Amino acid sequence: MRFTAETSSDGVTEQLFTLGEIPGVLWTPEGAAGARPLILIGHGGGQHKTAPGVVFRARRFVAECGFAVAAVDVPGHGDRPKVEQYHRIVTENQARVDAGAKLAPLLAAFQALVARQTVPEWQAVLDAVQQLEHVGAGPVGYWGVSLGCGLGVPFVAAEPRVRAAVLGLGGALASAEAAARITVPVEFLLQWDDERVPRAQGLALFDAFGSAEKTLHANPGKHVELPAFELDSALRFFARHLG
Amino acid sequence: MRFTAETSSDGVTEQLFTLGEIPGVLWTPEGAAGARPLILIGHGGGQHKTAPGVVFRARRFVAECGFAVAAVDVPGHGDRPKVEQYHRIVTENQARVDAGAKLAPLLAAFQALVARQTVPEWQAVLDAVQQLEHVGAGPVGYWGVSLGCGLGVPFVAAEPRVRAAVLGLGGALASAEAAARITVPVEFLLQWDDERVPRAQGLALFDAFGSAEKTLHANPGKHVELPAFELDSALRFFARHLG
Repeated sequence: MRFTAETSSDGVTEQLFTLGEIPGVLWTPEGAAGARPLILIGHGGGQHKTAPGVVFRARRFVAECGFAVAAVDVPGHGDRPKVEQYHRIVTENQARVDAGAKLAPLLAAFQALVARQTVPEWQAVLDAVQQLEHVGAGPVGYWGVSLGCGLGVPFVAAEPRVRAAVLGLGGALASAEAAARITVPVEFLLQWDDERVPRAQGLALFDAFGSAEKTLHANPGKHVELPAFELDSALRFFARHLG
Repeated sequence: MRFTAETSSDGVTEQLFTLGEIPGVLWTPEGAAGARPLILIGHGGGQHKTAPGVVFRARRFVAECGFAVAAVDVPGHGDRPKVEQYHRIVTENQARVDAGAKLAPLLAAFQALVARQTVPEWQAVLDAVQQLEHVGAGPVGYWGVSLGCGLGVPFVAAEPRVRAAVLGLGGALASAEAAARITVPVEFLLQWDDERVPRAQGLALFDAFGSAEKTLHANPGKHVELPAFELDSALRFFARHLG
Protein backbone atom coordinates (compact mmCIF):
# COMPACT_ATOMS: atom_id res chain seq x y z
CA MET A 1 0.00 0.00 0.00
CA ARG A 2 1.53 3.26 -1.12
CA PHE A 3 0.25 6.73 -0.17
CA THR A 4 0.61 9.27 -2.95
CA ALA A 5 -1.00 12.44 -1.56
CA GLU A 6 -2.50 13.77 1.65
CA THR A 7 -4.60 16.86 2.34
CA SER A 8 -6.71 17.98 5.27
CA SER A 9 -9.63 20.37 5.46
CA ASP A 10 -12.50 20.98 7.87
CA GLY A 11 -11.16 18.33 10.24
CA VAL A 12 -11.03 15.56 7.62
CA THR A 13 -7.80 14.09 6.24
CA GLU A 14 -7.89 12.64 2.71
CA GLN A 15 -5.13 10.23 1.67
CA LEU A 16 -4.83 8.95 -1.88
CA PHE A 17 -3.21 5.53 -2.17
CA THR A 18 -2.57 2.65 -4.52
CA LEU A 19 -2.71 -0.99 -3.55
CA GLY A 20 -1.14 -2.91 -6.40
CA GLU A 21 -3.15 -1.72 -9.41
CA ILE A 22 -6.04 -0.39 -7.35
CA PRO A 23 -6.20 3.40 -6.82
CA GLY A 24 -8.02 4.33 -3.63
CA VAL A 25 -8.72 7.08 -1.15
CA LEU A 26 -9.00 7.04 2.61
CA TRP A 27 -10.74 9.67 4.72
CA THR A 28 -10.18 9.87 8.49
CA PRO A 29 -10.66 12.48 11.19
CA GLU A 30 -7.68 14.85 11.21
CA GLY A 31 -5.20 13.67 13.82
CA ALA A 32 -7.03 10.34 14.26
CA ALA A 33 -5.31 7.67 16.37
CA GLY A 34 -6.52 4.19 17.18
CA ALA A 35 -9.17 1.85 15.81
CA ARG A 36 -12.53 3.06 14.53
CA PRO A 37 -15.40 1.80 12.37
CA LEU A 38 -14.63 1.83 8.65
CA ILE A 39 -17.12 2.41 5.84
CA LEU A 40 -16.30 1.25 2.33
CA ILE A 41 -18.18 3.26 -0.31
CA GLY A 42 -18.78 1.67 -3.70
CA HIS A 43 -19.24 4.30 -6.42
CA GLY A 44 -21.85 4.27 -9.17
CA GLY A 45 -21.40 3.42 -12.84
CA GLY A 46 -19.36 6.00 -14.73
CA GLN A 47 -18.26 7.56 -11.43
CA HIS A 48 -15.05 7.10 -9.47
CA LYS A 49 -13.55 7.12 -5.98
CA THR A 50 -13.61 10.90 -5.62
CA ALA A 51 -16.86 11.68 -7.47
CA PRO A 52 -18.67 14.54 -5.68
CA GLY A 53 -21.36 12.28 -4.18
CA VAL A 54 -18.77 9.86 -2.80
CA VAL A 55 -16.70 12.64 -1.25
CA PHE A 56 -19.77 14.35 0.22
CA ARG A 57 -20.94 11.16 1.95
CA ALA A 58 -17.45 10.20 3.08
CA ARG A 59 -16.79 13.56 4.71
CA ARG A 60 -20.08 13.40 6.61
CA PHE A 61 -19.37 9.87 7.89
CA VAL A 62 -15.95 11.06 9.12
CA ALA A 63 -16.98 14.44 10.51
CA GLU A 64 -20.22 13.36 12.18
CA CYS A 65 -19.40 9.81 13.30
CA GLY A 66 -15.61 9.79 13.59
CA PHE A 67 -15.45 6.84 11.19
CA ALA A 68 -12.82 6.05 8.57
CA VAL A 69 -14.08 5.83 4.99
CA ALA A 70 -12.39 4.22 1.99
CA ALA A 71 -13.32 4.16 -1.69
CA VAL A 72 -11.52 2.67 -4.68
CA ASP A 73 -11.96 2.94 -8.42
CA VAL A 74 -13.90 0.09 -9.98
CA PRO A 75 -12.00 -1.45 -12.94
CA GLY A 76 -12.40 0.76 -16.02
CA HIS A 77 -13.36 3.79 -13.89
CA GLY A 78 -11.50 6.82 -12.52
CA ASP A 79 -7.74 6.42 -12.66
CA ARG A 80 -7.87 2.81 -13.88
CA PRO A 81 -7.21 1.82 -17.49
CA LYS A 82 -10.00 0.79 -19.79
CA VAL A 83 -10.73 -2.96 -19.51
CA GLU A 84 -11.14 -4.17 -23.08
CA GLN A 85 -13.54 -6.99 -22.13
CA TYR A 86 -15.79 -4.74 -20.03
CA HIS A 87 -15.72 -1.94 -22.58
CA ARG A 88 -16.80 -4.34 -25.31
CA ILE A 89 -19.71 -5.64 -23.21
CA VAL A 90 -20.91 -2.11 -22.36
CA THR A 91 -20.80 -1.19 -26.04
CA GLU A 92 -22.65 -4.35 -27.05
CA ASN A 93 -25.25 -3.81 -24.31
CA GLN A 94 -25.87 -0.25 -25.47
CA ALA A 95 -26.45 -1.52 -29.00
CA ARG A 96 -28.88 -4.14 -27.72
CA VAL A 97 -30.83 -1.56 -25.69
CA ASP A 98 -30.95 0.72 -28.74
CA ALA A 99 -32.40 -2.27 -30.62
CA GLY A 100 -35.12 -2.68 -28.00
CA ALA A 101 -33.61 -5.07 -25.44
CA LYS A 102 -34.33 -4.55 -21.74
CA LEU A 103 -31.53 -2.83 -19.85
CA ALA A 104 -31.96 -4.46 -16.42
CA PRO A 105 -30.90 -8.05 -17.23
CA LEU A 106 -27.95 -6.84 -19.32
CA LEU A 107 -26.77 -4.59 -16.47
CA ALA A 108 -27.25 -7.43 -14.00
CA ALA A 109 -25.13 -9.87 -15.96
CA PHE A 110 -22.41 -7.25 -16.44
CA GLN A 111 -22.29 -6.36 -12.75
CA ALA A 112 -22.09 -10.03 -11.77
CA LEU A 113 -19.08 -10.40 -14.06
CA VAL A 114 -17.29 -7.33 -12.68
CA ALA A 115 -18.03 -8.43 -9.09
CA ARG A 116 -15.86 -11.51 -9.62
CA GLN A 117 -12.95 -9.08 -9.86
CA THR A 118 -14.02 -6.45 -7.32
CA VAL A 119 -14.91 -8.73 -4.39
CA PRO A 120 -11.30 -9.95 -3.91
CA GLU A 121 -9.96 -6.45 -4.70
CA TRP A 122 -12.11 -4.85 -1.99
CA GLN A 123 -11.19 -7.57 0.49
CA ALA A 124 -7.53 -6.80 -0.16
CA VAL A 125 -8.22 -3.11 0.42
CA LEU A 126 -9.92 -3.91 3.74
CA ASP A 127 -6.91 -6.04 4.74
CA ALA A 128 -4.52 -3.18 3.99
CA VAL A 129 -6.54 -0.30 5.40
CA GLN A 130 -7.30 -2.12 8.64
CA GLN A 131 -3.56 -2.51 9.24
CA LEU A 132 -3.20 1.26 9.53
CA GLU A 133 -2.89 2.50 13.09
CA HIS A 134 -5.53 5.23 12.63
CA VAL A 135 -8.10 2.80 11.16
CA GLY A 136 -7.50 -0.56 12.85
CA ALA A 137 -9.71 -3.65 12.88
CA GLY A 138 -13.01 -2.09 13.92
CA PRO A 139 -16.42 -3.03 12.52
CA VAL A 140 -16.93 -2.40 8.81
CA GLY A 141 -19.91 -0.95 6.97
CA TYR A 142 -20.62 -0.80 3.24
CA TRP A 143 -22.48 1.95 1.36
CA GLY A 144 -23.25 1.52 -2.34
CA VAL A 145 -26.14 2.13 -4.72
CA SER A 146 -26.65 1.33 -8.41
CA LEU A 147 -23.35 -0.20 -9.61
CA GLY A 148 -22.26 0.08 -5.98
CA CYS A 149 -25.19 -2.19 -5.09
CA GLY A 150 -24.61 -4.66 -7.90
CA LEU A 151 -20.98 -5.03 -6.79
CA GLY A 152 -21.79 -4.49 -3.12
CA VAL A 153 -24.25 -7.34 -2.65
CA PRO A 154 -21.75 -10.10 -3.54
CA PHE A 155 -19.07 -8.26 -1.53
CA VAL A 156 -21.19 -7.98 1.62
CA ALA A 157 -22.27 -11.60 1.21
CA ALA A 158 -18.64 -12.74 0.98
CA GLU A 159 -17.06 -10.56 3.65
CA PRO A 160 -17.74 -11.33 7.32
CA ARG A 161 -16.07 -8.11 8.50
CA VAL A 162 -19.02 -6.13 7.08
CA ARG A 163 -21.56 -5.70 9.89
CA ALA A 164 -24.10 -3.39 8.23
CA ALA A 165 -24.82 -2.20 4.69
CA VAL A 166 -26.72 0.56 2.94
CA LEU A 167 -27.57 -0.67 -0.55
CA GLY A 168 -30.07 0.34 -3.20
CA LEU A 169 -31.02 1.23 -6.76
CA GLY A 170 -30.41 -2.38 -7.72
CA GLY A 171 -32.55 -5.32 -8.68
CA ALA A 172 -32.85 -8.99 -7.93
CA LEU A 173 -31.73 -10.17 -11.36
CA ALA A 174 -28.06 -9.70 -10.58
CA SER A 175 -27.81 -10.62 -7.00
CA ALA A 176 -30.76 -12.38 -5.38
CA GLU A 177 -28.67 -15.46 -4.68
CA ALA A 178 -25.91 -13.47 -2.98
CA ALA A 179 -28.49 -11.30 -1.19
CA ALA A 180 -29.97 -14.39 0.43
CA ARG A 181 -26.58 -15.07 2.02
CA ILE A 182 -26.47 -11.60 3.63
CA THR A 183 -27.53 -11.69 7.27
CA VAL A 184 -26.30 -8.32 8.58
CA PRO A 185 -28.65 -5.32 8.93
CA VAL A 186 -29.42 -3.73 5.57
CA GLU A 187 -30.97 -0.36 4.75
CA PHE A 188 -32.16 -0.61 1.15
CA LEU A 189 -32.93 2.47 -0.96
CA LEU A 190 -35.44 2.20 -3.78
CA GLN A 191 -36.51 4.98 -6.11
CA TRP A 192 -40.21 4.53 -6.78
CA ASP A 193 -39.96 5.87 -10.35
CA ASP A 194 -36.56 4.35 -11.18
CA GLU A 195 -36.25 4.32 -14.97
CA ARG A 196 -33.34 1.83 -14.91
CA VAL A 197 -34.37 -0.72 -12.28
CA PRO A 198 -37.97 -1.96 -12.56
CA ARG A 199 -39.83 -1.45 -9.26
CA ALA A 200 -40.66 -5.14 -8.95
CA GLN A 201 -36.96 -6.03 -9.34
CA GLY A 202 -35.97 -3.65 -6.55
CA LEU A 203 -38.70 -4.97 -4.24
CA ALA A 204 -37.61 -8.53 -5.08
CA LEU A 205 -34.01 -7.75 -4.12
CA PHE A 206 -35.17 -6.31 -0.78
CA ASP A 207 -37.25 -9.44 -0.30
CA ALA A 208 -34.23 -11.64 -1.05
CA PHE A 209 -31.93 -10.34 1.71
CA GLY A 210 -31.50 -12.98 4.41
CA SER A 211 -31.13 -10.35 7.13
CA ALA A 212 -33.43 -10.42 10.17
CA GLU A 213 -33.14 -6.62 10.27
CA LYS A 214 -33.63 -5.04 6.89
CA THR A 215 -35.49 -1.85 6.13
CA LEU A 216 -36.68 -0.62 2.75
CA HIS A 217 -36.74 3.13 2.18
CA ALA A 218 -38.66 3.96 -0.99
CA ASN A 219 -39.05 7.51 -2.26
CA PRO A 220 -40.59 9.07 -5.34
CA GLY A 221 -38.24 10.04 -8.11
CA LYS A 222 -35.92 8.67 -10.73
CA HIS A 223 -32.72 6.65 -10.42
CA VAL A 224 -30.43 9.56 -9.52
CA GLU A 225 -32.93 11.52 -7.39
CA LEU A 226 -32.26 10.04 -3.94
CA PRO A 227 -33.55 12.55 -1.37
CA ALA A 228 -30.95 14.23 0.83
CA PHE A 229 -32.58 13.03 4.05
CA GLU A 230 -31.61 9.44 3.19
CA LEU A 231 -27.98 10.30 3.90
CA ASP A 232 -29.04 11.49 7.37
CA SER A 233 -30.75 8.16 7.79
CA ALA A 234 -27.68 6.23 6.61
CA LEU A 235 -25.54 8.10 9.14
CA ARG A 236 -27.85 7.06 11.98
CA PHE A 237 -28.05 3.50 10.63
CA PHE A 238 -24.27 3.10 10.66
CA ALA A 239 -23.93 4.88 14.01
CA ARG A 240 -26.47 2.42 15.48
CA HIS A 241 -24.80 -0.70 14.09
CA LEU A 242 -21.11 0.19 14.05
CA GLY A 243 -20.77 2.91 16.68
CA MET B 1 -64.22 21.04 26.44
CA ARG B 2 -64.06 19.82 30.00
CA PHE B 3 -60.90 18.67 31.78
CA THR B 4 -61.50 15.78 34.18
CA ALA B 5 -58.03 14.87 35.47
CA GLU B 6 -54.45 16.09 35.31
CA THR B 7 -51.20 14.43 36.29
CA SER B 8 -47.55 15.19 35.58
CA SER B 9 -44.50 12.96 35.55
CA ASP B 10 -41.05 13.10 34.01
CA GLY B 11 -41.73 16.59 32.66
CA VAL B 12 -44.91 15.62 30.80
CA THR B 13 -48.39 16.77 31.83
CA GLU B 14 -51.32 14.51 30.92
CA GLN B 15 -54.83 16.01 30.92
CA LEU B 16 -57.92 13.88 30.39
CA PHE B 17 -60.83 15.72 28.80
CA THR B 18 -64.20 15.28 27.18
CA LEU B 19 -65.43 17.24 24.21
CA GLY B 20 -69.13 16.55 23.94
CA GLU B 21 -69.27 12.76 23.82
CA ILE B 22 -65.61 12.35 22.86
CA PRO B 23 -63.19 11.32 25.61
CA GLY B 24 -59.65 12.49 24.96
CA VAL B 25 -56.24 13.06 26.42
CA LEU B 26 -53.74 15.85 25.92
CA TRP B 27 -50.02 15.63 26.68
CA THR B 28 -47.87 18.76 26.90
CA PRO B 29 -44.50 19.66 28.39
CA GLU B 30 -44.92 20.39 32.10
CA GLY B 31 -45.31 24.13 32.57
CA ALA B 32 -45.76 24.69 28.83
CA ALA B 33 -46.82 28.18 27.73
CA GLY B 34 -47.50 29.41 24.21
CA ALA B 35 -48.07 27.81 20.83
CA ARG B 36 -46.34 24.63 19.72
CA PRO B 37 -46.74 21.90 17.10
CA LEU B 38 -49.50 19.43 17.87
CA ILE B 39 -49.55 15.72 16.96
CA LEU B 40 -52.84 13.86 16.85
CA ILE B 41 -52.37 10.13 17.41
CA GLY B 42 -55.02 7.75 16.05
CA HIS B 43 -55.06 4.46 18.00
CA GLY B 44 -55.35 0.97 16.52
CA GLY B 45 -58.36 -1.32 16.42
CA GLY B 46 -59.34 -2.62 19.87
CA GLN B 47 -57.04 -0.06 21.51
CA HIS B 48 -57.87 3.31 23.06
CA LYS B 49 -56.52 6.79 23.75
CA THR B 50 -54.24 5.68 26.60
CA ALA B 51 -53.15 2.27 25.27
CA PRO B 52 -49.48 1.70 26.16
CA GLY B 53 -48.21 2.24 22.61
CA VAL B 54 -50.10 5.52 22.30
CA VAL B 55 -48.81 6.83 25.64
CA PHE B 56 -45.24 5.73 24.89
CA ARG B 57 -45.21 7.58 21.57
CA ALA B 58 -46.98 10.63 22.95
CA ARG B 59 -44.52 11.05 25.83
CA ARG B 60 -41.56 10.84 23.49
CA PHE B 61 -43.02 13.48 21.11
CA VAL B 62 -43.56 15.79 24.10
CA ALA B 63 -40.31 15.12 25.94
CA GLU B 64 -37.97 15.09 22.93
CA CYS B 65 -39.64 17.65 20.63
CA GLY B 66 -41.62 19.88 23.00
CA PHE B 67 -44.78 19.17 21.02
CA ALA B 68 -48.33 18.80 22.30
CA VAL B 69 -50.00 15.45 21.59
CA ALA B 70 -53.70 14.60 21.65
CA ALA B 71 -55.53 11.28 21.30
CA VAL B 72 -59.21 10.45 21.51
CA ASP B 73 -61.16 7.22 21.73
CA VAL B 74 -62.57 6.02 18.42
CA PRO B 75 -66.32 5.26 18.69
CA GLY B 76 -66.86 1.89 20.35
CA HIS B 77 -63.37 1.96 21.92
CA GLY B 78 -61.94 2.90 25.32
CA ASP B 79 -64.40 4.92 27.43
CA ARG B 80 -66.98 5.19 24.66
CA PRO B 81 -70.16 3.09 24.60
CA LYS B 82 -70.57 0.22 22.21
CA VAL B 83 -71.98 1.38 18.86
CA GLU B 84 -74.62 -1.17 17.91
CA GLN B 85 -74.16 -0.70 14.16
CA TYR B 86 -70.36 -1.04 14.30
CA HIS B 87 -70.52 -3.97 16.69
CA ARG B 88 -72.88 -5.79 14.35
CA ILE B 89 -70.61 -5.23 11.36
CA VAL B 90 -67.53 -6.45 13.24
CA THR B 91 -69.40 -9.58 14.30
CA GLU B 92 -70.65 -10.21 10.76
CA ASN B 93 -67.17 -9.64 9.32
CA GLN B 94 -65.66 -12.12 11.74
CA ALA B 95 -68.21 -14.72 10.67
CA ARG B 96 -67.42 -14.06 7.02
CA VAL B 97 -63.67 -14.41 7.61
CA ASP B 98 -64.30 -17.66 9.51
CA ALA B 99 -66.23 -18.81 6.45
CA GLY B 100 -63.28 -18.06 4.20
CA ALA B 101 -63.81 -14.44 3.12
CA LYS B 102 -60.81 -12.14 2.77
CA LEU B 103 -60.31 -9.81 5.73
CA ALA B 104 -58.77 -6.81 3.95
CA PRO B 105 -61.80 -5.61 1.90
CA LEU B 106 -64.13 -6.09 4.89
CA LEU B 107 -61.82 -4.06 7.14
CA ALA B 108 -61.50 -1.41 4.46
CA ALA B 109 -65.26 -0.95 4.09
CA PHE B 110 -65.70 -0.83 7.87
CA GLN B 111 -62.97 1.78 8.35
CA ALA B 112 -64.42 3.94 5.58
CA LEU B 113 -67.76 3.88 7.38
CA VAL B 114 -66.27 4.80 10.78
CA ALA B 115 -64.19 7.57 9.20
CA ARG B 116 -67.38 9.40 8.24
CA GLN B 117 -67.89 9.88 11.97
CA THR B 118 -64.30 10.35 13.13
CA VAL B 119 -63.16 12.95 10.58
CA PRO B 120 -65.55 15.64 11.90
CA GLU B 121 -64.95 14.50 15.50
CA TRP B 122 -61.19 14.88 15.16
CA GLN B 123 -61.58 18.26 13.45
CA ALA B 124 -63.67 19.42 16.43
CA VAL B 125 -60.94 18.18 18.78
CA LEU B 126 -58.31 20.14 16.83
CA ASP B 127 -60.52 23.24 17.04
CA ALA B 128 -60.83 22.90 20.82
CA VAL B 129 -57.26 21.90 21.64
CA GLN B 130 -55.75 24.66 19.52
CA GLN B 131 -57.70 27.23 21.55
CA LEU B 132 -55.72 26.29 24.64
CA GLU B 133 -53.01 28.77 25.52
CA HIS B 134 -50.35 26.04 25.99
CA VAL B 135 -51.11 24.44 22.59
CA GLY B 136 -52.17 27.25 20.26
CA ALA B 137 -52.54 27.23 16.51
CA GLY B 138 -49.16 25.75 15.51
CA PRO B 139 -48.61 23.20 12.72
CA VAL B 140 -50.34 19.85 13.16
CA GLY B 141 -49.04 16.34 12.52
CA TYR B 142 -50.90 13.04 12.45
CA TRP B 143 -49.58 9.62 13.53
CA GLY B 144 -51.70 6.50 12.99
CA VAL B 145 -51.24 2.92 11.82
CA SER B 146 -53.71 0.09 11.16
CA LEU B 147 -57.14 1.46 12.17
CA GLY B 148 -55.29 4.74 12.80
CA CYS B 149 -54.30 4.68 9.11
CA GLY B 150 -57.73 3.71 7.81
CA LEU B 151 -59.25 6.61 9.74
CA GLY B 152 -56.21 8.83 9.36
CA VAL B 153 -56.02 8.91 5.56
CA PRO B 154 -59.47 10.52 5.12
CA PHE B 155 -58.74 12.83 8.07
CA VAL B 156 -55.40 14.05 6.70
CA ALA B 157 -56.98 14.45 3.25
CA ALA B 158 -59.79 16.59 4.72
CA GLU B 159 -57.84 18.70 7.21
CA PRO B 160 -55.55 21.44 5.90
CA ARG B 161 -54.06 22.09 9.34
CA VAL B 162 -52.22 18.74 9.09
CA ARG B 163 -48.78 19.43 7.59
CA ALA B 164 -47.16 15.98 7.88
CA ALA B 165 -48.35 12.46 8.61
CA VAL B 166 -46.92 9.11 9.65
CA LEU B 167 -49.28 6.41 8.43
CA GLY B 168 -49.01 2.69 7.83
CA LEU B 169 -50.24 -0.88 8.16
CA GLY B 170 -53.09 -0.01 5.86
CA GLY B 171 -54.06 -0.83 2.31
CA ALA B 172 -55.35 0.91 -0.77
CA LEU B 173 -58.77 -0.73 -0.69
CA ALA B 174 -60.10 1.65 1.94
CA SER B 175 -58.49 4.85 1.11
CA ALA B 176 -56.72 5.18 -2.22
CA GLU B 177 -59.08 7.93 -3.33
CA ALA B 178 -58.53 9.97 -0.16
CA ALA B 179 -54.79 9.21 -0.27
CA ALA B 180 -54.57 10.79 -3.71
CA ARG B 181 -55.84 14.05 -2.20
CA ILE B 182 -53.07 14.13 0.42
CA THR B 183 -50.21 16.41 -0.60
CA VAL B 184 -48.30 16.88 2.67
CA PRO B 185 -45.16 14.83 3.46
CA VAL B 186 -45.99 11.25 4.44
CA GLU B 187 -43.85 8.61 6.11
CA PHE B 188 -45.57 5.29 5.43
CA LEU B 189 -44.84 2.16 7.47
CA LEU B 190 -45.35 -1.25 5.90
CA GLN B 191 -44.73 -4.61 7.53
CA TRP B 192 -43.31 -6.92 4.89
CA ASP B 193 -45.00 -10.01 6.34
CA ASP B 194 -48.26 -8.32 7.40
CA GLU B 195 -50.85 -11.06 7.84
CA ARG B 196 -53.77 -8.60 7.78
CA VAL B 197 -52.86 -6.20 4.97
CA PRO B 198 -51.64 -7.87 1.75
CA ARG B 199 -48.26 -6.49 0.72
CA ALA B 200 -49.53 -5.37 -2.68
CA GLN B 201 -52.34 -3.40 -0.99
CA GLY B 202 -49.89 -1.59 1.27
CA LEU B 203 -47.58 -0.76 -1.66
CA ALA B 204 -50.61 0.45 -3.64
CA LEU B 205 -51.62 2.80 -0.82
CA PHE B 206 -48.10 4.25 -0.71
CA ASP B 207 -48.29 4.64 -4.47
CA ALA B 208 -51.62 6.43 -4.19
CA PHE B 209 -50.50 9.31 -1.94
CA GLY B 210 -50.45 12.57 -3.89
CA SER B 211 -47.54 13.94 -1.83
CA ALA B 212 -44.38 15.09 -3.59
CA GLU B 213 -42.44 13.97 -0.49
CA LYS B 214 -43.46 10.52 0.66
CA THR B 215 -41.20 7.81 1.98
CA LEU B 216 -42.01 4.14 2.42
CA HIS B 217 -40.35 2.32 5.32
CA ALA B 218 -40.85 -1.43 5.00
CA ASN B 219 -39.54 -3.87 7.58
CA PRO B 220 -39.78 -7.63 8.03
CA GLY B 221 -42.37 -8.88 10.49
CA LYS B 222 -46.06 -9.17 11.09
CA HIS B 223 -48.73 -6.53 11.56
CA VAL B 224 -47.91 -5.66 15.16
CA GLU B 225 -44.13 -6.04 14.93
CA LEU B 226 -43.11 -2.49 13.95
CA PRO B 227 -39.44 -2.10 14.88
CA ALA B 228 -38.63 0.38 17.64
CA PHE B 229 -36.29 2.42 15.44
CA GLU B 230 -39.28 3.56 13.36
CA LEU B 231 -40.43 5.71 16.28
CA ASP B 232 -37.02 7.40 16.26
CA SER B 233 -37.55 8.01 12.57
CA ALA B 234 -41.07 9.42 13.14
CA LEU B 235 -39.70 11.83 15.74
CA ARG B 236 -37.15 13.16 13.27
CA PHE B 237 -39.75 13.30 10.49
CA PHE B 238 -42.09 15.46 12.58
CA ALA B 239 -39.23 17.58 13.92
CA ARG B 240 -38.18 18.27 10.32
CA HIS B 241 -41.65 19.19 9.06
CA LEU B 242 -43.30 20.79 12.10
CA GLY B 243 -40.37 22.01 14.21
